[in-house]
Amino acid sequence: MAPAYKLTYFNITALGEPIRFILSYGGLEFEDNRIQFENWPGIKSSMPFGQLPILEHNGKVSNQSVAICRYLAKQVKLVGKDDWEDLEIDAINLPHTIMSKMKKIKESKAIPLFSEIIPPYLEKLDAVAKKNNGYLAVGRLTWADLFFVGILDYLNTMGKRDLLADYPNLQTVKKNVLEIPNIKAWVEKHPKDNL
Amino acid sequence: MAPAYKLTYFNITALGEPIRFILSYGGLEFEDNRIQFENWPGIKSSMPFGQLPILEHNGKVSNQSVAICRYLAKQVKLVGKDDWEDLEIDAINLPHTIMSKMKKIKESKAIPLFSEIIPPYLEKLDAVAKKNNGYLAVGRLTWADLFFVGILDYLNTMGKRDLLADYPNLQTVKKNVLEIPNIKAWVEKHPKDNL
Repeated sequence: MAPAYKLTYFNITALGEPIRFILSYGGLEFEDNRIQFENWPGIKSSMPFGQLPILEHNGKVSNQSVAICRYLAKQVKLVGKDDWEDLEIDAINLPHTIMSKMKKIKESKAIPLFSEIIPPYLEKLDAVAKKNNGYLAVGRLTWADLFFVGILDYLNTMGKRDLLADYPNLQTVKKNVLEIPNIKAWVEKHPKDNL
Repeated sequence: MAPAYKLTYFNITALGEPIRFILSYGGLEFEDNRIQFENWPGIKSSMPFGQLPILEHNGKVSNQSVAICRYLAKQVKLVGKDDWEDLEIDAINLPHTIMSKMKKIKESKAIPLFSEIIPPYLEKLDAVAKKNNGYLAVGRLTWADLFFVGILDYLNTMGKRDLLADYPNLQTVKKNVLEIPNIKAWVEKHPKDNL
């Protein structure tokens, strides 16, 4: 029987990896459908929303990586214990901040973003992680942590640096996520991007 | 007794109005705390996150307008009937698209955004509204509609035009929201921005 979930994304980590992390965390089997960049122009118009990632489940399909992460987090219990905690997780607004910065990078091809614009943001985030005992919200593991650590390698590759070098509490977040057995197993099976 | 909710924002619609719409829709009483722009520099540092809007409830405080809208939508039942519907509502990703475009406008002060960048986006959204019978997701009223219509006056003011002029299905979304008795009553009590 085919796995219940099918994720379609490019053959890189980037916006696909947080989704893969959450699926792996919960032990949800999924088809990891990876599109080669050279094939994308021929496929794009056949995709329901013209962009990746997309998630297929029970004959339905949806797009938008953050929305997909939030959905899967509910399935694998990486959400808050009540609506207000979910608000706190949403309010750190990490995915959208990262994604809007990534978009800027694409538009400007400007590496200075990594040396000038991102550090003040990481500084604030480091303080948040300190307050939350090595997690990004509500004092324990949530999908916000998996999103952050899932996308980190890609950001480091783009920035050509270890973005967390000066942020010990964010290093703890990273360690806390990568030590989860299911995540560790996933990362070991899947090599880093070769961009 | 003080209302259970307190919203603090500037004395304009913009990012505060979708929150006010959702609170009003659900008949949730709230203190509508409006900060005058000239007082903001003196207040900013005393705000827990240094930005507005913030929502206070049960002695707790949170920020980030979209997260607040999603939270309140759960309280007033403007969400999906299951997790997948919530994914579909999230995936239209309207708030973040609008907000990132607003940020661009602030950065560039470029009105051409309204004549060049926003229309292709509204065209897609109009098709979505057509498919969903005059709503933005799942074929019926959700917080996505209240967010969109709540922020619309502000966008029109910024763009100095009726952004929906060419989009009949989005006009239907607007009509559907503004005809809701609680929203109608709210709008009647609160004049448009005078920017």
